[in-house]
Amino acid sequence: MSAPPLAAATEVADVLVALFAVLLAAKLGDELFRRLRQPTIVGEILAGVVIGPSALGLVEPDEVLEVFAELGVVFLLFWVGLETRLSELREVGRPAALTGALGVALPFAGGVALGLALGESTATSVFLGAALVATSVGITSAVLLELRSLATTAGRTILGAAVIDDILAMTILAVAVGLEDGGIDAVGVAVVIAMAVGFVAFFAIGGTQLLARRPQLLHAPRFSESPLLPAVILCLGLAAFSAQIGLAAIIGAFLAGMIVAETREQHPIEDEIAPLYAFFPPFFFAFIGLQVELDAFTDPGTLALLAATTVLAAATKFAGAWLGARSLGSRAATVVGVGMVPRGEVGIIVAGIGAASGVVDAELFAVIVGMSILTTLAVPPILRARLAGP
Amino acid sequence: MSAPPLAAATEVADVLVALFAVLLAAKLGDELFRRLRQPTIVGEILAGVVIGPSALGLVEPDEVLEVFAELGVVFLLFWVGLETRLSELREVGRPAALTGALGVALPFAGGVALGLALGESTATSVFLGAALVATSVGITSAVLLELRSLATTAGRTILGAAVIDDILAMTILAVAVGLEDGGIDAVGVAVVIAMAVGFVAFFAIGGTQLLARRPQLLHAPRFSESPLLPAVILCLGLAAFSAQIGLAAIIGAFLAGMIVAETREQHPIEDEIAPLYAFFPPFFFAFIGLQVELDAFTDPGTLALLAATTVLAAATKFAGAWLGARSLGSRAATVVGVGMVPRGEVGIIVAGIGAASGVVDAELFAVIVGMSILTTLAVPPILRARLAGP
Repeated sequence: MSAPPLAAATEVADVLVALFAVLLAAKLGDELFRRLRQPTIVGEILAGVVIGPSALGLVEPDEVLEVFAELGVVFLLFWVGLETRLSELREVGRPAALTGALGVALPFAGGVALGLALGESTATSVFLGAALVATSVGITSAVLLELRSLATTAGRTILGAAVIDDILAMTILAVAVGLEDGGIDAVGVAVVIAMAVGFVAFFAIGGTQLLARRPQLLHAPRFSESPLLPAVILCLGLAAFSAQIGLAAIIGAFLAGMIVAETREQHPIEDEIAPLYAFFPPFFFAFIGLQVELDAFTDPGTLALLAATTVLAAATKFAGAWLGARSLGSRAATVVGVGMVPRGEVGIIVAGIGAASGVVDAELFAVIVGMSILTTLAVPPILRARLAGP
Repeated sequence: MSAPPLAAATEVADVLVALFAVLLAAKLGDELFRRLRQPTIVGEILAGVVIGPSALGLVEPDEVLEVFAELGVVFLLFWVGLETRLSELREVGRPAALTGALGVALPFAGGVALGLALGESTATSVFLGAALVATSVGITSAVLLELRSLATTAGRTILGAAVIDDILAMTILAVAVGLEDGGIDAVGVAVVIAMAVGFVAFFAIGGTQLLARRPQLLHAPRFSESPLLPAVILCLGLAAFSAQIGLAAIIGAFLAGMIVAETREQHPIEDEIAPLYAFFPPFFFAFIGLQVELDAFTDPGTLALLAATTVLAAATKFAGAWLGARSLGSRAATVVGVGMVPRGEVGIIVAGIGAASGVVDAELFAVIVGMSILTTLAVPPILRARLAGP
């Protein structure tokens, strides 16, 4: 065994306590916000803040919890994929592409401009731009699922835009890391983009057509029991492959969900995925809260920078996405614009990459994490009011 | 964040690959053995051997996989608890207590005698005895579940004996660790035993009675949705508490299952636990296989020691358990005797504790791990033949 077994045995006992504490806190936060008629995921995120290092200090965000959080958003997007048909996505192809493109361009330009205006280096400014780019589709999906609005035009546009958003964000991140390393490998970046586009196209089109024609690939008599494990294995496989080529794991999980959905007539697989979808995502939401470090914001200058960055991030993303979705009508475009604002875990990951390579200092790191969480907490109530409204 | 975020992001992508590979291999092993009409868990363990360091080297046993393996056996025993009523366990109280006690005494005496005969120190000999003591009820439960024989007298006797077995094994381990540290803290050991017995009695009797009378504690209207998460939180909580006081986590999970089972009339919770029971346990079985190190057995002396230890472990456990269960009749006593033989993960954990404190050297560690796996692989086919036979 790789770790000293005694230490490992003790660690496993401690990990059980952490998993128990996070799940219990998330469930209590969920229940409380349900009774207050507020979005339950906000309750789960705040539960993470309460038990995390900023407040009670009961649970530290560690690698095991990070894996459970990742599986949380993977199973969340798998579930979203199960509820989505490729044909429905295609119907919103044009506004989704525009939303993805403009929703990336404006925040990126805004972030770079802010960085340069603050006197930061080009590399740091590009990183700030990259951190403002990526949308956390997990947050918006969860709200849309809760309000049963995933199957609306706006909901589908957000999903389609999120895929394009992620490919563009990955490209920008590759350029940002290249700049920091002193040079951009244009061929390398092109290969990465081609792989990402090829992966998405191959599985979105080929995978769904294959399973639509031959659902028995996932079902009896090829496998003796229910198709749950084959479906979960496909989800983990595409998520892992997606992450390995530099895309977000959730893109693969979403594709896997769409592929499995093609066999839905043969077996009501949602009933079997539902418990995994109930178990894992609370770790995702609570983990976002665990990463909050309130101590960083005692300095008024940092607080002002946080406010400016958050307003900029929200305004540029809303404007870009709204412009992209304009053809859907003003009301749907507003839902799309608001829905693309949350940065969630994605902003935190980009900030982390910048911090690890030294381009992003401790203050800017705290600001980006704070911005990611503020946009994530602000959107669900607004979206809820918009979608529940007249 | 505690780990450098770039490293963490890469690690999470790699963890997804490992989870995918383990689940896929386990499922293929399961399918293959199902077609060969062999116990499927043997297929899952061997799948772990194949992809592990001994053969293909695709996956290393690491901390994250260990956590998934632990949750695997936790959800397995939670499931077993759901299928068990306290009143049914009480009916076999006497033979179960005798089986647990004699099934611990004989292997312990045999292990100590073997160690002394080989010229090992007293501390090392006591550790060898301790490693031969503990039964892996997870393995036997899985076979009994597969053959739908959990509700037989023999099945219940094994479950009851396993609880007693674990309390005695914990006591012996505390004494062994104390011996190695140069003195036994008799009061400390007594407190540990009292806590363990108190924990089991309190939750087995108090918990089941409370839920039988007030099932609404787990159900609507107290919680808005299904009772799945409250049930899972109870399972993780008791498992964590059990592990923290030195018992196996699975004892807590088993008690939680029995408690939740009392509310079964109100809600068919099995349907919702089933997907978690399908997802996690393959990691438990494959992880046992991942820990095999075949390289250790190229030396004929080590191989001979492995053979002797395995025969001794199997014979003493069978004899002790058979004697304890004799009052059930010869046929049931044979099933109980065979069913108590697998050492599974428990032997490996004890060996690891001994190795970490230096009392168990590398050769003896490999021998104990090998014995644990051989007893685990040998029992399912025998049990299957016994239970399926005339």
